[in-house]
Amino acid sequence: MISAAPAALAPDTPAHTVDAFHRGRFWLVQPKQGGHRAGMDAMMLAAAVPSSFCGRVADFGAGAGAAGLAVLSRCPTAKTVLVERAPEMAAFAAASLAHPGNAHLSDRATVLVADVTASGQARAKAGLADHGFDFVIMNPPFNAARDRATPDRLRREAHVMEDGLFESWIRSAAAVVRPRGGLAIIARPEQLAAILNAMTGRFGDAELLAVHPRPDAAAIRIVVRAAHGARGRLAIRPPLMLHAQSGNAPDGRSEMIANGLASLFGD
Amino acid sequence: MISAAPAALAPDTPAHTVDAFHRGRFWLVQPKQGGHRAGMDAMMLAAAVPSSFCGRVADFGAGAGAAGLAVLSRCPTAKTVLVERAPEMAAFAAASLAHPGNAHLSDRATVLVADVTASGQARAKAGLADHGFDFVIMNPPFNAARDRATPDRLRREAHVMEDGLFESWIRSAAAVVRPRGGLAIIARPEQLAAILNAMTGRFGDAELLAVHPRPDAAAIRIVVRAAHGARGRLAIRPPLMLHAQSGNAPDGRSEMIANGLASLFGD
Repeated sequence: MISAAPAALAPDTPAHTVDAFHRGRFWLVQPKQGGHRAGMDAMMLAAAVPSSFCGRVADFGAGAGAAGLAVLSRCPTAKTVLVERAPEMAAFAAASLAHPGNAHLSDRATVLVADVTASGQARAKAGLADHGFDFVIMNPPFNAARDRATPDRLRREAHVMEDGLFESWIRSAAAVVRPRGGLAIIARPEQLAAILNAMTGRFGDAELLAVHPRPDAAAIRIVVRAAHGARGRLAIRPPLMLHAQSGNAPDGRSEMIANGLASLFGD
Repeated sequence: MISAAPAALAPDTPAHTVDAFHRGRFWLVQPKQGGHRAGMDAMMLAAAVPSSFCGRVADFGAGAGAAGLAVLSRCPTAKTVLVERAPEMAAFAAASLAHPGNAHLSDRATVLVADVTASGQARAKAGLADHGFDFVIMNPPFNAARDRATPDRLRREAHVMEDGLFESWIRSAAAVVRPRGGLAIIARPEQLAAILNAMTGRFGDAELLAVHPRPDAAAIRIVVRAAHGARGRLAIRPPLMLHAQSGNAPDGRSEMIANGLASLFGD
């Protein structure tokens, strides 16, 4: 991403940057410090949606909208609802949609301030109707509290792991997605068991893809994709290597994914 | 493995082959047809034991002894107990130990006919005392019944998946291994959740390694390694590719592992 001069924003918008993604094909307005700044995680998550996708995607925990907008940027007829609990972050998502550089995308996106962990009628009342989506992507606040000690309230809110986090997020995804609709989730390797358990009985045909910083290093992220109501077994796809074995040059495949030119699962 | 002339065996030994492993550094007497014939799975499982290992390893579901003997072949002071439920297969394991080509290993190995799913006193009575081992390796009968239809009783017995298989095998492993002792298991990708769940509260510091036939193909096996009583989180190691991208030539690393010249996790 490339920082650029801020767009015209409401005078009370907190200190922010405007960053280019997909080689300038869309822009993100996000807090300059604190909060959860978007980057490669959001691009990888968005890349889990097939390039041929043309339905409605819910971006759970959308933050400033990076993953949802990345889906729109690659899938020219897809639509997205950016679902974010924190009003401050949802305001950044709205600012992103208002940015002139996103004018070609913004009529396909809306922002919804809602808690994705709400259940039943509360969830529907919040604007997340059952079976209303063809795909759910989610980037849950997966950094456990013990990993970071930061006084920043926004960042803490985005990063605190709660018991049952994956259970509640995936339960909601199963409710709002249509039968055979998709789910993609990005998380840390140690959260794999919680994710697979929460998917049990809800999602099948699961695919696991590990993301390694280099070919000889342990994975730092996992992306799990699955289909609602499917019964097929877990498959482990070839991993993504972010960088080549030596040096800091990005791997060719990861660069394509970062720039919205390839899908993560090759479809 | 290379077939060779059969060694002298008891006259009633069923039709068998004698196959070289680790480039002839040890030999396996195994049924010619039927049963579970050993190959790369056993070599990968054995390779999960660190090269510096010098304790007692239990080989659960040892068959004709391939994995346990492969540990002895690479770790010059290790000892093994080959634990096998089926008397017919245990007889092949005994025949393997009696083979002259294994004379340099056989005083470090014993065969135990026992059901590893036994619990409590029954397990101890069967010869598997609590905390008696430094490492357990296991190659459970992980091919689900629906995958194969074969009239061969031995093969069926080795391949039928039972409910709770991983739970009972891993529970026994936790009982017989000393604190901080190791566990390594080879299985299919779709069995990952069952394995991780059975390890919960018993084994930690788990490491997952996926085995892909080629760099662009889904994994066909997983190897999971963990330490008894440890609390660390799951790590996903770089995968093993059995073959290079094109052609049938084995990948250099997988050839080293097949031949007992490298460990799977690099330790």
